[in-house]
Amino acid sequence: MVRVLVLYNKPEDAQAFEQHYRDVHLPLAKILPGLQRYTVSRNILPADKSASYYLVAELDWTDMAALQRAFQSPEGQAIGQDIANNLARLSPGIPTMIYEVEAVQ
Amino acid sequence: MVRVLVLYNKPEDAQAFEQHYRDVHLPLAKILPGLQRYTVSRNILPADKSASYYLVAELDWTDMAALQRAFQSPEGQAIGQDIANNLARLSPGIPTMIYEVEAVQ
Repeated sequence: MVRVLVLYNKPEDAQAFEQHYRDVHLPLAKILPGLQRYTVSRNILPADKSASYYLVAELDWTDMAALQRAFQSPEGQAIGQDIANNLARLSPGIPTMIYEVEAVQ
Repeated sequence: MVRVLVLYNKPEDAQAFEQHYRDVHLPLAKILPGLQRYTVSRNILPADKSASYYLVAELDWTDMAALQRAFQSPEGQAIGQDIANNLARLSPGIPTMIYEVEAVQ
């Protein structure tokens, strides 16, 4: 399984961020081709200040090829533009990473 | 489901880190009471420099009470000491957070 992990910093205007995330971003993300699972977490408990994020989103695909197809699709292009044009303004700095998930237990 | 997300920065001595993680940390983590799932990811592809981590570990419990019991147990105390005394030296700065995972898809 391949995961996209997205860490959102605390937005300056949480209400505007939440409204955009719910009404625009979430519907765009949910139609990404091949998306297996999509979780959104709030109320993050950081062990220290270096991990004080506002929201964590995790999006899973079966493998890297499926993930690449999703982000090259029109739906993937649309969500890329939404992040660059809107979310990056509402929540400055969005550390994002992609990795293969290997279960050890 | 409740998740502990652990982000490891690039160790100065990757070989020493890997040896400790495999031989000491992994066996301690796997016996944490109530642990439902434990994944370890390497070869992280960061979208930008702010997300250039070396290893991502995700540990899941059914709920917050089960997670708290695990970290209050002798096994939990042992792993806390291993992080503080060993891993924090091998991989300086280990952003760690706890959150409830809410599936939207």
